[in-house]
Amino acid sequence: MYIKHVREVKEEEVNYEGSINAKIQWLITKDVGANHFAMRRFIIKKDGKIPKHQHDWEHEIYMLSGRGVVGIDEEEVEVDKDMFIYIPPNKPHWFRNPYNEDCIFLCLIPYK
Amino acid sequence: MYIKHVREVKEEEVNYEGSINAKIQWLITKDVGANHFAMRRFIIKKDGKIPKHQHDWEHEIYMLSGRGVVGIDEEEVEVDKDMFIYIPPNKPHWFRNPYNEDCIFLCLIPYK
Repeated sequence: MYIKHVREVKEEEVNYEGSINAKIQWLITKDVGANHFAMRRFIIKKDGKIPKHQHDWEHEIYMLSGRGVVGIDEEEVEVDKDMFIYIPPNKPHWFRNPYNEDCIFLCLIPYK
Repeated sequence: MYIKHVREVKEEEVNYEGSINAKIQWLITKDVGANHFAMRRFIIKKDGKIPKHQHDWEHEIYMLSGRGVVGIDEEEVEVDKDMFIYIPPNKPHWFRNPYNEDCIFLCLIPYK
């Protein structure tokens, strides 16, 4: 059984250009045999952001704690704990955290 | 954008035979266009369980709150908040909650 706590996984800078105060942890990946989709955890700190971008794969997102703002197309929505989001492929989207608490969410993507 | 709160999604009984005090919410599915994998949320109440079973698809699990016991093959491990688990295809596994708090976790599965 592959079982861990998030504190055992290193936090890496989100390297999408223009990202600020945004970390990613790769929790479940092909490295442990998960060949269909990957589980990642994001931490966006106060005044952090991941700028508008798009790609041809979808996101399945679950808000773990804190609050944040998620944008898609031209719309922004405030999100908090226990909200979930489906972002279809090829939709421009972005994230920002204007609040004091860390905005923490899972974001899962398919392997293609 | 498809965005909801878990309180908007009905809780259904887990219908795997022998399950007790176990609920499932289907959060993100093919119904909203998610064709690669589905996001479900489980709530196992005090003394609840999902008995030992197996299938040819994997699980990616993230513990949201409470505590529980997850079994795989012949081994049991106690899990709590912010632990995550990869259960490979065809591995016998089960869940039980001997504690007072609800054991709540996400469990994602591929569409095959």
